Amino acid sequence: MEFSSKLLENAVNEVSQLPGIGKRTALRLVLHLLRQPNEQTDALSQALQMMRNNIKFCKSCNNISDLEVCEICSNPNRDIGLICVVEDVRDVMAIENTSSFRGLYHVLGGKISPMDGIGPHDLNIKLLVDKVKEGKVKELIFALSSTMEGDTTNFYIYKQIQDYDVDISTIARGVSVGDELEYADEITLGRSIVNRVPFEASLKL
Amino acid sequence: MEFSSKLLENAVNEVSQLPGIGKRTALRLVLHLLRQPNEQTDALSQALQMMRNNIKFCKSCNNISDLEVCEICSNPNRDIGLICVVEDVRDVMAIENTSSFRGLYHVLGGKISPMDGIGPHDLNIKLLVDKVKEGKVKELIFALSSTMEGDTTNFYIYKQIQDYDVDISTIARGVSVGDELEYADEITLGRSIVNRVPFEASLKL
Ligand SMILES: [Zn+2]
Ligand SMILES: [Zn+2]
Repeated sequence: MEFSSKLLENAVNEVSQLPGIGKRTALRLVLHLLRQPNEQTDALSQALQMMRNNIKFCKSCNNISDLEVCEICSNPNRDIGLICVVEDVRDVMAIENTSSFRGLYHVLGGKISPMDGIGPHDLNIKLLVDKVKEGKVKELIFALSSTMEGDTTNFYIYKQIQDYDVDISTIARGVSVGDELEYADEITLGRSIVNRVPFEASLKL
Repeated sequence: MEFSSKLLENAVNEVSQLPGIGKRTALRLVLHLLRQPNEQTDALSQALQMMRNNIKFCKSCNNISDLEVCEICSNPNRDIGLICVVEDVRDVMAIENTSSFRGLYHVLGGKISPMDGIGPHDLNIKLLVDKVKEGKVKELIFALSSTMEGDTTNFYIYKQIQDYDVDISTIARGVSVGDELEYADEITLGRSIVNRVPFEASLKL
């Protein structure tokens, strides 16, 4: 691409670093901003910087939060004995959207994936195991996507806590195998929370 | 969408104002930025603001430029008697990329489209007509997309300058009818510049 302006080129280069955005799409987006009032670009830039520099991760569950402890963890009406283990923040949003779950979450921040160089210690697993060891957790629901990495992660956590007094379940596979959780429709996802099955049954031990 | 953070929600809302970016895609992009170092978000935000606040439009051709007069217009090796009339900046980039054109450009900033409320006076047409009237332009090449709006715009400009001593051509329709110029491959687009035809022939007068 031949740019007539360094300012334009820089903007296109930065935008095209976002995943799934090629140079051509980046150019289209940037030229759109040029046709809008300056204020729109200022608002966009400021919202991104404010977020990146000020956002927090809940000390208890690792969910994205504006406070040290997120609104879910600090809500006295939620069941603190029930924890739903998810990969990332989008899964929390998807499950919250079903209004079918009144426990807390634990956001791992990914799943174990040797191919991508992600081991157990790169994830927020220790804090979860510690919670179980403290004895306050009655039931853990695994809600990772049903891929090899998801299964590996479930099993890794299971091995750490199997000797403690905690029920372990996985969400019912109404969600089709291999599908990402966040794309499931609300009813299917809600049902798979309600119909969760004991984890050991899901292993066919 | 239920957001656990106002900062996150604001960022997603701003990003999803970009054309073709829905809430879900915006969330994916924003969460990606959260996984990258702060510096990437800062660089992105600053590049967008620097561009929006400092970019100029060439006084002569209306192309995007970092200077008052763009690099093409100020290049002494370009043929100032030959002007290629295009809709927008992406068309300049697409034609420059073919390396088949050594004249100057004139960027209209759109095309006449009564449906969208865009009349001749919303476009950069007067400056082009003035250039022709000054007598320095030997040939004008219309390179608008071959849609009804493009044809209407060509014809409007043609009526203003038909009595002056200037050749008027349109790019050869190697580019398929109805296609946007910027998506044509380089060879086709280059050929349609070289094989341009007199405008009056294209009208089948
Ligand atoms: Zn929390
Ligand atoms: Zn210029």
